[in-house]
Amino acid sequence: MTIRRRISESTIHRLSLYYRLLAALEGEGYHTVSSKDLAHREKLTPAQVRKDLSFFGSFGTRGLGYPTKELKARIANILGIDRQWNVGLVGAGNIGSALVSYKEFQKQGFMIKAIFDNDQRKIGSNHKGIVISDMNDMAAEVKKKKLEIIVIAVPASVAQKVCDLAVTAGIKAILNFAPVNLKVPKEVLLRTENMAMEIEFLSFFLTNRLQLDNIERT
Amino acid sequence: MTIRRRISESTIHRLSLYYRLLAALEGEGYHTVSSKDLAHREKLTPAQVRKDLSFFGSFGTRGLGYPTKELKARIANILGIDRQWNVGLVGAGNIGSALVSYKEFQKQGFMIKAIFDNDQRKIGSNHKGIVISDMNDMAAEVKKKKLEIIVIAVPASVAQKVCDLAVTAGIKAILNFAPVNLKVPKEVLLRTENMAMEIEFLSFFLTNRLQLDNIERT
Repeated sequence: MTIRRRISESTIHRLSLYYRLLAALEGEGYHTVSSKDLAHREKLTPAQVRKDLSFFGSFGTRGLGYPTKELKARIANILGIDRQWNVGLVGAGNIGSALVSYKEFQKQGFMIKAIFDNDQRKIGSNHKGIVISDMNDMAAEVKKKKLEIIVIAVPASVAQKVCDLAVTAGIKAILNFAPVNLKVPKEVLLRTENMAMEIEFLSFFLTNRLQLDNIERT
Repeated sequence: MTIRRRISESTIHRLSLYYRLLAALEGEGYHTVSSKDLAHREKLTPAQVRKDLSFFGSFGTRGLGYPTKELKARIANILGIDRQWNVGLVGAGNIGSALVSYKEFQKQGFMIKAIFDNDQRKIGSNHKGIVISDMNDMAAEVKKKKLEIIVIAVPASVAQKVCDLAVTAGIKAILNFAPVNLKVPKEVLLRTENMAMEIEFLSFFLTNRLQLDNIERT
């Protein structure tokens, strides 16, 4: 499927939420689910849920709801998580180690196939079954292991260098955990995960003594 | 300031982005910045930027733009990052260790003042200057150290128990890194950071061979 219309980040994010919710509902024995059920659990409106799903074609039957299993499979297909992705991780420090152990990645088909570092003491050693490679061998490893996604978990000071190596190696999708804005060519998708921004959401809430009702899920 | 209108998650997220951008622009010597500058760097529309900022009162002068330093200070104040927050971290594993070393937290005023674990081998030991406490002493430590935010970095299987302990201790804001949906009373704000959802954004993009132009920043 090729998407020609514009899609918002929030929509993609909500698809990930729906996928998780459908997996939970399937586990609880629900064979069908309504847009109202999905909306209620995610604090959205049923109209928003229907709009999100209609973006990807026609789902469900009016009055009967969506078949849980099929909708989940369809969303997995849209998100690209019904297949396996070969992921290269750069940085064998604390965040890197946490990501290697993060079962949620594997569960969704993101398999860490290579780990890179620039520390000579780490290169060549075995980290949870993967031999750590030299960062400078990235191009060869990307080709050999057919890596498709690079995850950057290095200090901010070297993140742009790592990013450039990944781009040169032909990588088109990068997830960055370094707290720095990286530059990539326009054909490369870069996502920066900034953990401080999540905690700022909390301080905003506490500072403004907000009622949760005042926050709209988007 | 008390916010009475509804505010969306995306708006709060964009404030965090503007704050970072303004800090960068200030560093580059820009004394004023226009909504167009802010919009351009974040791939938003100037109208969106003006709308976001107008939510919090009147900023800037038509035609002259916003004074960089003042706008940054004002956003820091709105986000509650112009003060210090006492944070308790639960879980001294890989993610926990990464968070303790994460300078971005401290930079924004989030100070980890207590670390909790349930592993008897870890309790009492010193982790980067903080003595690890027993998870079951949370209520006493929250009071003693005036903790305001709890960060959960434990395996999914024990996350709800930790969350309940935090709620019982009077905590109103929780950041959860465990890949599980936690239940909290309605007066508590819970944010769950799911790293797998970020990487799904990449697989969505690669799967659908999207042009970046088709993705709208929200």
